[in-house]
Amino acid sequence: MADKTAMNTEDKIIGRNPVLEAIKSGRTIDKLLVKKGKLEGSAVAIVKKARDAGIVIRETDVRKLDAIAEGGNHQGMIAYVSPYEYKTIDFILNSAREKNEPPFVIICDKITDPHNLGAILRTANCVGAHGVVIPKHGSAGLSGAAVKSAAGAAEYTPVAKVTNLASTIEKLKKEGLWIAAADMDGDDLYSSDLTGALGIVIGSEGSGVSRLVKEKCDFTVSIPMCGQINSLNASVAAGVLMYEALHQRKTKGIN
Amino acid sequence: MADKTAMNTEDKIIGRNPVLEAIKSGRTIDKLLVKKGKLEGSAVAIVKKARDAGIVIRETDVRKLDAIAEGGNHQGMIAYVSPYEYKTIDFILNSAREKNEPPFVIICDKITDPHNLGAILRTANCVGAHGVVIPKHGSAGLSGAAVKSAAGAAEYTPVAKVTNLASTIEKLKKEGLWIAAADMDGDDLYSSDLTGALGIVIGSEGSGVSRLVKEKCDFTVSIPMCGQINSLNASVAAGVLMYEALHQRKTKGIN
Repeated sequence: MADKTAMNTEDKIIGRNPVLEAIKSGRTIDKLLVKKGKLEGSAVAIVKKARDAGIVIRETDVRKLDAIAEGGNHQGMIAYVSPYEYKTIDFILNSAREKNEPPFVIICDKITDPHNLGAILRTANCVGAHGVVIPKHGSAGLSGAAVKSAAGAAEYTPVAKVTNLASTIEKLKKEGLWIAAADMDGDDLYSSDLTGALGIVIGSEGSGVSRLVKEKCDFTVSIPMCGQINSLNASVAAGVLMYEALHQRKTKGIN
Repeated sequence: MADKTAMNTEDKIIGRNPVLEAIKSGRTIDKLLVKKGKLEGSAVAIVKKARDAGIVIRETDVRKLDAIAEGGNHQGMIAYVSPYEYKTIDFILNSAREKNEPPFVIICDKITDPHNLGAILRTANCVGAHGVVIPKHGSAGLSGAAVKSAAGAAEYTPVAKVTNLASTIEKLKKEGLWIAAADMDGDDLYSSDLTGALGIVIGSEGSGVSRLVKEKCDFTVSIPMCGQINSLNASVAAGVLMYEALHQRKTKGIN
């Protein structure tokens, strides 16, 4: 929850740790505002790192920082960053082509928690997926909190933001991808073929993959449930699906 | 979910005397928030007592304390207490025996984010694990945030809180469990045998499984990494490990 307090708008990164992560991930920082006066604690090392990275640093009155943070706990430090530059579906498909790999795309159907979106992006990078697709409306975007949870993956794995997920899925199908929707009533994950050109649709935390999107998919897959709780955290479910796909793609020599 | 959120208000102890009484009564305190800056008056003795009791203490901005106290007079001090009733290792092992199943236990080595701990507990329930073990110190506890993230799993899957993880692992080994540590340099997950009586150790978000704990384990397993980022979110990693174990246990007819 501490993250929430230090929550960031698209162009500000507020608080010491978020600023440090942004510097470490190599994200472009336009300007770093630092509280006027003697630096204390972790601020010393962070400002040194920023200086080494050639970032412009401005000593700023604490009242001004308060105003910019709009109630966020800035801990004497606010960075201005360029908003995340979303890529296109074609960019994602091209990056698969360039690697001579069958496309492997993760489609997030209205993931609203930026931490989940960030964790999914991080996992997508770890399994070598070519990109992540999110809808323009009703979804968390790549704001500070999501970028932070992605632990650097936003710098490497492209994210496309699309107006209409259903028509994007149509487009991906035309490009030869098979689209699987994660669904409680789907076919057993481990009996499903997840090799080849593939898109996996992950549903929202509350209500899963929406009906309109599910109807566009080629098949559904379900993760086995052996306890009393019948669903996983969205980023955990996405991780289990992506890793089973990776495992199949590796063992069957497709990837 | 609304009920769970409402429940959290009871998980806070607000103000110096109430906090002092809670410490003296030996009640489990997951975290003590103390106003940033120099301690004054009775706060000095209370913080010393808390520190002696091994309670995690976080210096916190006064505005954040105001927000958490929701109008309560916090006097610079708010404690989060756990209403969760922790179980014992024997309780967990017995529940496996009663079901006539080989024990399957998840051991969390200092997971500090309560959302991660909750998501791990939720996944543990979904794979039918018999229990989760956390250390008394340096770990998130089953506070409101973790209980909420567990989405009800805290009611079904027992959690044991132990003083010493290394000696707990010794005990589990004597009971016939094989203990696997998740480790970047471990054996390939998919080539490892995860059937039979099994404990899986999940490392902390920052630094993985600690050396002392790792030395006690029978073997290490690693999750393949195919991108530029070389680690997953802790609860995602735990999910991938647990589900591969479940898959092996099911397909080999052990569970």
